[in-house]
Amino acid sequence: MTTAPKSPGRPRSSVDAEVFAATLRTVEELGYTRATVDRIAAAAGVAKTTIYRRWPTKGALITACLVDAFGPPSLAGETREELLAETIRWTAAKVAEPGLGAAFAGVFTDAVNDPGLRGLLSTRFQAPYLAALRDALGESDRTVLFLIDVVVGTLLHRMGMTGEPMADADVEALVAMTRGVLS
Amino acid sequence: MTTAPKSPGRPRSSVDAEVFAATLRTVEELGYTRATVDRIAAAAGVAKTTIYRRWPTKGALITACLVDAFGPPSLAGETREELLAETIRWTAAKVAEPGLGAAFAGVFTDAVNDPGLRGLLSTRFQAPYLAALRDALGESDRTVLFLIDVVVGTLLHRMGMTGEPMADADVEALVAMTRGVLS
Repeated sequence: MTTAPKSPGRPRSSVDAEVFAATLRTVEELGYTRATVDRIAAAAGVAKTTIYRRWPTKGALITACLVDAFGPPSLAGETREELLAETIRWTAAKVAEPGLGAAFAGVFTDAVNDPGLRGLLSTRFQAPYLAALRDALGESDRTVLFLIDVVVGTLLHRMGMTGEPMADADVEALVAMTRGVLS
Repeated sequence: MTTAPKSPGRPRSSVDAEVFAATLRTVEELGYTRATVDRIAAAAGVAKTTIYRRWPTKGALITACLVDAFGPPSLAGETREELLAETIRWTAAKVAEPGLGAAFAGVFTDAVNDPGLRGLLSTRFQAPYLAALRDALGESDRTVLFLIDVVVGTLLHRMGMTGEPMADADVEALVAMTRGVLS
């Protein structure tokens, strides 16, 4: 290994990827609260200012990390019921990835008392899924927002109570239950 | 006001009540992460050691505060459907109380990476509701735990995304949706 990771000539996307990976590792290891920007910077091998130049707060960093890890909405399924079911299974698999469930739960906790962070989460993270699901399911924003609360909230609460992702059988119970919400 | 709040002769229950009230006020004002035991002690007008003697960690304090604020399970309703509906409405009202939703969301976030705290939450906070609902609904532990994840998770996720408790119409959508989970 050379000292390349600190080279100023490195492309931005590569620094981003390294910081996101370090963020998830640190959250997985220490938990959301103890995963400070200081510790994340140390784990990524970058200066703290490198992080703050890109993301002014820990909440902004975690939001960007979630956007990167979840990626664009992937909507598969022949029928609306199948599409909803596949989306729920995909969300459950994402929340089960190391560090991702804890980062997700943590950022929502901070958002309860932080309007700026709620705005970021809503516009940068949730909005594309809301729009894609609204169009694919042909449901109102209100119904899709309700479904997002139910699916994500249930998965994160299970993780908080057991420290484990939800078992497949319970994910299928979630699929069966939410089918009734479609109009 | 005299200096009574620091009198050593004060009954334990009165100190507890004051610390719990200060905990919720501090979480409401600063958010869960910034509501440290130091700040809670200052808000309650007690020494930090007074808190740590009773609750060895912030997680233990928040769990005790939740147990106190939620109180014993109150199960009303002529039918199982009504009982579940009333329990959901009661939970939604509790989560909407100042500081309580944020404290609830925060302690679950910390629990993701803290097995000791998960044990406390499970045995001290969740167990009485699980037992009471299991008996009243005649459902398996697995079904009741699933319902708890759905109801609490949905309410807390809504609070994280909007900073507001769930509107009544959406609480009723939650009631209608979960009815189908009963066997």
